[in-house]
Amino acid sequence: MNGAESLVRTLLASGVDTCFANPGTSEMHFVAALDKVEGMRCILGMAETVVTGCADGYGRMAGKPAATLLHCGPGFANGIANVHNARRAHTPMVNIVGDQATYHRPFDAPLTSDTEGLARAASHWVRTSTSSATVGADAAAAVQAANTAPGQIATLILPADTAWNEGGAVAAPLPVPARPAVAPETVRAIAQALRSKQPAMLVLYGQALSEAGLTAANRVAQATGAQLRTPTQVSRMARGRGRVPVDRIPYVVEGALKMLADTKHVILVGAKPPTAFFAYPGKPSLMSPPDSITHVLARPEQDAVAALELLADELGAPKRVSIPESELKPQLARGKFEPVAFASTLAALLPENCIVAEDAVTSGRALFAPTFNAAPMDWLQNTGGAIGHAFPCATGAAVACPGRKVVCLQADGAGMYSLQALWTQAREKLDVVNVVFANRIYKILYGELVSVGAQPGRASNELFDLARPELDWVKLAAGMGVEAARVETLEGFADVFKSACGRRGPFLIEFRI
Amino acid sequence: MNGAESLVRTLLASGVDTCFANPGTSEMHFVAALDKVEGMRCILGMAETVVTGCADGYGRMAGKPAATLLHCGPGFANGIANVHNARRAHTPMVNIVGDQATYHRPFDAPLTSDTEGLARAASHWVRTSTSSATVGADAAAAVQAANTAPGQIATLILPADTAWNEGGAVAAPLPVPARPAVAPETVRAIAQALRSKQPAMLVLYGQALSEAGLTAANRVAQATGAQLRTPTQVSRMARGRGRVPVDRIPYVVEGALKMLADTKHVILVGAKPPTAFFAYPGKPSLMSPPDSITHVLARPEQDAVAALELLADELGAPKRVSIPESELKPQLARGKFEPVAFASTLAALLPENCIVAEDAVTSGRALFAPTFNAAPMDWLQNTGGAIGHAFPCATGAAVACPGRKVVCLQADGAGMYSLQALWTQAREKLDVVNVVFANRIYKILYGELVSVGAQPGRASNELFDLARPELDWVKLAAGMGVEAARVETLEGFADVFKSACGRRGPFLIEFRI
Repeated sequence: MNGAESLVRTLLASGVDTCFANPGTSEMHFVAALDKVEGMRCILGMAETVVTGCADGYGRMAGKPAATLLHCGPGFANGIANVHNARRAHTPMVNIVGDQATYHRPFDAPLTSDTEGLARAASHWVRTSTSSATVGADAAAAVQAANTAPGQIATLILPADTAWNEGGAVAAPLPVPARPAVAPETVRAIAQALRSKQPAMLVLYGQALSEAGLTAANRVAQATGAQLRTPTQVSRMARGRGRVPVDRIPYVVEGALKMLADTKHVILVGAKPPTAFFAYPGKPSLMSPPDSITHVLARPEQDAVAALELLADELGAPKRVSIPESELKPQLARGKFEPVAFASTLAALLPENCIVAEDAVTSGRALFAPTFNAAPMDWLQNTGGAIGHAFPCATGAAVACPGRKVVCLQADGAGMYSLQALWTQAREKLDVVNVVFANRIYKILYGELVSVGAQPGRASNELFDLARPELDWVKLAAGMGVEAARVETLEGFADVFKSACGRRGPFLIEFRI
Repeated sequence: MNGAESLVRTLLASGVDTCFANPGTSEMHFVAALDKVEGMRCILGMAETVVTGCADGYGRMAGKPAATLLHCGPGFANGIANVHNARRAHTPMVNIVGDQATYHRPFDAPLTSDTEGLARAASHWVRTSTSSATVGADAAAAVQAANTAPGQIATLILPADTAWNEGGAVAAPLPVPARPAVAPETVRAIAQALRSKQPAMLVLYGQALSEAGLTAANRVAQATGAQLRTPTQVSRMARGRGRVPVDRIPYVVEGALKMLADTKHVILVGAKPPTAFFAYPGKPSLMSPPDSITHVLARPEQDAVAALELLADELGAPKRVSIPESELKPQLARGKFEPVAFASTLAALLPENCIVAEDAVTSGRALFAPTFNAAPMDWLQNTGGAIGHAFPCATGAAVACPGRKVVCLQADGAGMYSLQALWTQAREKLDVVNVVFANRIYKILYGELVSVGAQPGRASNELFDLARPELDWVKLAAGMGVEAARVETLEGFADVFKSACGRRGPFLIEFRI
């Protein structure tokens, strides 16, 4: 058995059975091993940012890593942006990066690059296999690293000769360490702070945004009056009717500061301290008031659900409490696009148990509150700020959950980073309805330019305007085999969206706004 | 003056007046400075691989660096593949990467990443500005580094506060070190080897492939009988009628080994030792025979033209010698696509003084010899093997040379990596005729799979086939504002290509093959 075959068999033995790939020559033995070994689903992406974004969406929904197969340093580099987003989402991911044969590397052939340096800059765990005999063990260690809480990026670099040489050995799966428990004294200290009745906010992320986490958090909130919030972007959140409605901390610094203004106790549950996305002259980095106290109930790798349940129990909260009802009722709006009206319309239309992948900082800013009463669903966001995430994230989520409708909400400027994902959707006949917010501008940047104190002029207009020429998303989608339609009103959107949800397979709606 | 303005003014003072950009929030002060300062041409790319690929094409043709403007680690990462290609081409390039403000970095906001680690893995020169007072000097040093022979990648990381703080100072241009001369004893030793009349080959790259370099190399070849060759991929080469016809060393190992089989003296002129693109089981890494002797006439950073002239003089070669004539006459062929027939047809049609950018390993393999007698032109290739290079390279070349027609020869699989470049072509009304070889397959990989000793099966078919669904390049181009047509025969290609060359502005021809 050669190294490549031992790799494929070890991945399968460790529970990794899906591989998003864009291979090159140095990965040919891995591909040949895939031909030989049954059981690994291979999905091609026509750009590496699609491959890694798919693996992110897949990992968030499957709760286990996909493998990616990438080609040398430049191939991995093309995928780093969505690896970065996955890292921020705590998504488990195993990257297999083929590279020059060990003995060929000194000759510095054209594709030779600092693959390990690139991998280290983007991964939690990096290893370069040195021999076919260790490839299996290296792969098992990579899967273990990926599965280690809260979910990690593991990158295994595979020189071509370690793949093709004989002497490969399949490795048994390695145990995944349990999430560390939260110390009882931490729970007691935070309970005491909450009993003070001073204004408190629980910031929930990761596990804490699962249905179980939210339910426990709601017990704490009801017992103490503490607010519940999510960071600006969530990796995955159980949302919709019957789920605890938790709004996010706004992206805009002024909004975030206002939301946290009176908070005395900021309690982090799998989350980091609320921080501005960027620094702005004269504005603070931390969103919590200087005289507030930050408590850590659960670090990201700890068991946040158990910690919330312990906290609720410590506070004597009833096991079952009612879920606050949002007053915002979904309803079909009419007329031109407007963020809240769109959100309300979408809320009325989202199919039961769907998955929403969203990467639309401008057009998506108002989506959360109006969708509290949508059908129950999971919501995925761009956690790392590297744009072009929703197209591939939705694609990977659809691979992970074949029975569920996926709704992809993608800004147009961001969507151009990874439009190739549409081709993968068509190829795999994935059940994704893509909505592109076509405002034909990097609108967020106009706001950012003003935020940093400048005024838009000639060059900024040159660099933010996307309307010259206009992108035609219907043609772009059709060019990759995805049916598409253009709408310009909310009622037009509702008609097309309903119809797209009523059929299977990918569809794209260009919403001109 | 803030740091950003000192940066823009310093770049301009140092001769950098073109900026390919895909900015984000951390670059807003740079953008604001562009609004304020006249003289910098800003060109937007809708993906960073387009931005860096444009800068590569620009740098090769302009002979001086463009700046790129990129957003944090993930933005730079998206551009690394074409930075890698530029590095292999010795293209001068100045990357400006905006990043988190110095004091904001410890808060690890979502877009925070190891920007410097990524930059180091891909650049010759990296610096992170630490204060607005030094930004100007840092920029001058970056341009100096980029311009240092043979041409380097310089990456300057600009924390947002170093851009927005006052105290910026414009720095004077720094001197560019002259190319080191070749030692006379080196020239004499190589002349002696050539006088032995043992089979010799000069491998030419970089400067040596300029018209002056080729002319001097031809004198050496005529005086000694030495063969002239280029590496498999050239960064820029003066080609066509009146230029010395030099063929390349084949990509396929067997072909390369055969070409070098009897060579006793391999003389490197700005080139590296001929090496296989990849290692293959049982095949050598070096293409020259084990008993051959490798001589270095000029390292890449040395003055290759002067060295060739000295060598020709040392050998007593006449100052003017005739240029060997190729027997391959351009002619319009008919029927289906076939590599040599296509090359001959293209040779008959290429406009005088055009620029050809080529990234088509499979369909482009036969292009060199049949185009020896095309109109005089410059030919640019993908030197680093990171595919998706021709679209942006052609785009940047067109920006550098507004009076010249650019012909972009792009394989379809590779083209999908950077198709967003078409939008930049439309936006800037660039004079580029794009030819996409639509074979709807990663055909090179089938060959590679067989080369490593495997047989294609289910998974490899899944990962190489691009025909399910078929890409429609006419629609993809139209979606980005570029007119396009599809051809299926050589005569159809000739008609459309002639017509496209007769007008100005971008056009795309999908050649179904």
